[in-house]
Amino acid sequence: MSYTEQHFPQEPTGPKVVTDSIPGPKGKKGIQSLGEVFDARCVYFLADYQKSYGNYIVDADGNTLLDCYAQIASIPLGYNNPELIKVAKSDEMVSAIVNRAALGNFTGVEYEKVQRSLLKYAPKGQKYVWNGLSGADANELAFKAVFFNYQSKKRGFDKQFSSEEEASCMENQAPGNPELAVLSFARAFHGRLFASGSVTRSKPIHKMDMPSFKWPKAEFPSYKYPEVDNKEYNAKEDERCLAIVENYFKTWHCPIACVIVEPIQSEGGDNHASATFFQGLRDITLKYGAKLIIDEVQTGCGGTGIMWEHERYNITPPPDLVTFSKKMQSAGYFFHDKELIPNQPYRQFNTWCGDEKLIMLAAAICKEIQEKDLLTSISKTGEFLFGKLEELQKEYPVYLQNLRGKGKACFVAFDMPSPEKRTEFLNKMRISGINIGACAEVGVRLRPTLVFEKKHAQIFIDVLSKVLATL
Amino acid sequence: MSYTEQHFPQEPTGPKVVTDSIPGPKGKKGIQSLGEVFDARCVYFLADYQKSYGNYIVDADGNTLLDCYAQIASIPLGYNNPELIKVAKSDEMVSAIVNRAALGNFTGVEYEKVQRSLLKYAPKGQKYVWNGLSGADANELAFKAVFFNYQSKKRGFDKQFSSEEEASCMENQAPGNPELAVLSFARAFHGRLFASGSVTRSKPIHKMDMPSFKWPKAEFPSYKYPEVDNKEYNAKEDERCLAIVENYFKTWHCPIACVIVEPIQSEGGDNHASATFFQGLRDITLKYGAKLIIDEVQTGCGGTGIMWEHERYNITPPPDLVTFSKKMQSAGYFFHDKELIPNQPYRQFNTWCGDEKLIMLAAAICKEIQEKDLLTSISKTGEFLFGKLEELQKEYPVYLQNLRGKGKACFVAFDMPSPEKRTEFLNKMRISGINIGACAEVGVRLRPTLVFEKKHAQIFIDVLSKVLATL
Repeated sequence: MSYTEQHFPQEPTGPKVVTDSIPGPKGKKGIQSLGEVFDARCVYFLADYQKSYGNYIVDADGNTLLDCYAQIASIPLGYNNPELIKVAKSDEMVSAIVNRAALGNFTGVEYEKVQRSLLKYAPKGQKYVWNGLSGADANELAFKAVFFNYQSKKRGFDKQFSSEEEASCMENQAPGNPELAVLSFARAFHGRLFASGSVTRSKPIHKMDMPSFKWPKAEFPSYKYPEVDNKEYNAKEDERCLAIVENYFKTWHCPIACVIVEPIQSEGGDNHASATFFQGLRDITLKYGAKLIIDEVQTGCGGTGIMWEHERYNITPPPDLVTFSKKMQSAGYFFHDKELIPNQPYRQFNTWCGDEKLIMLAAAICKEIQEKDLLTSISKTGEFLFGKLEELQKEYPVYLQNLRGKGKACFVAFDMPSPEKRTEFLNKMRISGINIGACAEVGVRLRPTLVFEKKHAQIFIDVLSKVLATL
Repeated sequence: MSYTEQHFPQEPTGPKVVTDSIPGPKGKKGIQSLGEVFDARCVYFLADYQKSYGNYIVDADGNTLLDCYAQIASIPLGYNNPELIKVAKSDEMVSAIVNRAALGNFTGVEYEKVQRSLLKYAPKGQKYVWNGLSGADANELAFKAVFFNYQSKKRGFDKQFSSEEEASCMENQAPGNPELAVLSFARAFHGRLFASGSVTRSKPIHKMDMPSFKWPKAEFPSYKYPEVDNKEYNAKEDERCLAIVENYFKTWHCPIACVIVEPIQSEGGDNHASATFFQGLRDITLKYGAKLIIDEVQTGCGGTGIMWEHERYNITPPPDLVTFSKKMQSAGYFFHDKELIPNQPYRQFNTWCGDEKLIMLAAAICKEIQEKDLLTSISKTGEFLFGKLEELQKEYPVYLQNLRGKGKACFVAFDMPSPEKRTEFLNKMRISGINIGACAEVGVRLRPTLVFEKKHAQIFIDVLSKVLATL
């Protein structure tokens, strides 16, 4: 029996659309009313989470959609997963909800076990974790760890702050508040607060009107597909982009303390890069005394068929920090070098220092993935799915451009010929029973749960074929 | 029957310390082991949350302490509050845990009710709420709303971004990323990320080695106590500080888009200010077209005897944004002007747009406060407590300096003569059964729950008297 047969015995056998449009009349009315108290302009449809189940999301009108987007790539194990419901109902969870601790000051007796249970699933080579609350928060906390480390190394780890540093930082001035940069890449997405927003380079809407740090933007490889026919071009593209990175290290007006990069640029268009590129970043950061942060917010926790996508590239030595959120439900960064623990207490600190209930949930999700071997099953689904997409691509080369994500489970994307066609496509897919997401200007991205199986992929392909025929 | 008699019938009748030190042997061993996987340098003691109850926190060694600090001012209704346990065990909570929604895209059918249930408790004059995840996050989201509004007003709310703005913001440059400032106050604390860290001005440890925005720092009034004997001095202090603020508006090299201020500077030393001062800030911000953000992260949700501390000052018109976190368990900002909803969708946006389970909890907390009239009871406790402290102050004027918070329930603080004496005092209080917190260099702050009653205050006073006699 497959995972969904065992754990979602009542899962629908396919999507079912009962209204002429999505949202239907109930949904439309609900969204209008919601709009009085909430910014409802981005709502695709109102969901009924108590009725949603496994891979299917049910809306206010009773439409049942196969969910290939999964809350912007964040639902890991399907809706109302019975194993997670057990965790949610446990005494430990109830206590974590009603007695939320200031984890750094008054840690609970049970917390060491919780922290260790999460660390079991750390990326290869990583030994510690610091907890945050969202992807943006995770990245900014990682920046703090890097900046503290950079300046402490310069000052001497055992040295106190000087009185000049103490006085100047209170005025937001150097030397206490030094000018240090984070290098990121064109089309990157790392969050929408102010430091995370400064390294995000995906779309103007993510950045407009915000004061920002003047940090360098390098170029991320733009490969040609299929890869097998473009090896030489793509290799040169790696070289070109790495040279740009190194040039920034040589010429930037202030120290670049770290590079942040996604293993696959997701929001920015599902842009992949090679092992050579990532190892090149590792080599450059080592050469110039900078840290390498891998942002696994969207890729991490199994979506690509391995727990942490960057492990695929065997980066040596491993990256200094790996950030996570989304499917993990909790957020934060893994690291391995003790020197990234600040040399004084209360530097990396805040009231809650994470959220124990989310950390418990994260550990339970990882455990379920491992125990039920969900990486193997999602990889098999992906292999089947990609094969089918390649076949369809031959038939519809205009609508399935730059098909990418081969061998990366269902973390798959392709491009439509125009933003308008993409909108038409997404709407037609939805009214045909498939909820699916966009990325960048013309990209379509699949981000199903980890319990998306061959039967679900087949349904997706069947609907896709029909929709493509109408474009 | 009092609230605790009704809801915590088994609450201890007083603290009980069973080890020679806190942490005792079990706690010390546990902290050492925890230190292998967590930065345990800030841990005061390991807590046993399943055994903690009402106003009492139990540690790993079985010590039972009267908690006057409540997880850095964040536990609202006592440990293991039965009303919150009901909410934690509800089907709605379980669903919110296992089906965490991307609230902005796929809002649940139940969510409008949740949002409205929170809005019932909005500060006077506020109509909307935007949800975040922590105090720092709430403040930075508020800054975003302000900056979007500032530039949109300048551009014209119905105008599209220009191509120059779009191109420049992708390079982190003006005009798309304009230079805009937030004015904050010396000794303020607003969080520890990069924009929130730039307006935090409490201690070097909160700011050191972080790149920051070069924003202006005004002065917060430093009053003399008792207030009744220092009216003239304190009034002049208001004038002096307001003149500094206005001068920044006249002279700063870029527009100041908003002022952020705490109703009582908490982390920075429990510094109070007058209605005149807050109204002065309102008048200046209006005069210069800037927004006023009141940071109620520590003061909000009833701790001072009213739901929102700034309401005490009758600021007219009401502040533009009010941020919250801590006792609310959820975080975010309230506002009233529709123009603070960005003129385009996806500007104020992220994957989760808050956390529904926390918003449910926040609404349940506020409802309990209102239904059980906890603001009246905590105010009465505070009146009793402050009277006793005034009596003790006559006996120990050196150890109870600048006693402040009169009429503000149990949101009370005083100063010790030196940091060393304060450490001695806090340690002696703890080993005598009282958990209590510090603020600024020499401050001691009381931050009990809202179910701290006269009997608990009496225990606190009895222990305090004994400890003061030994200093």
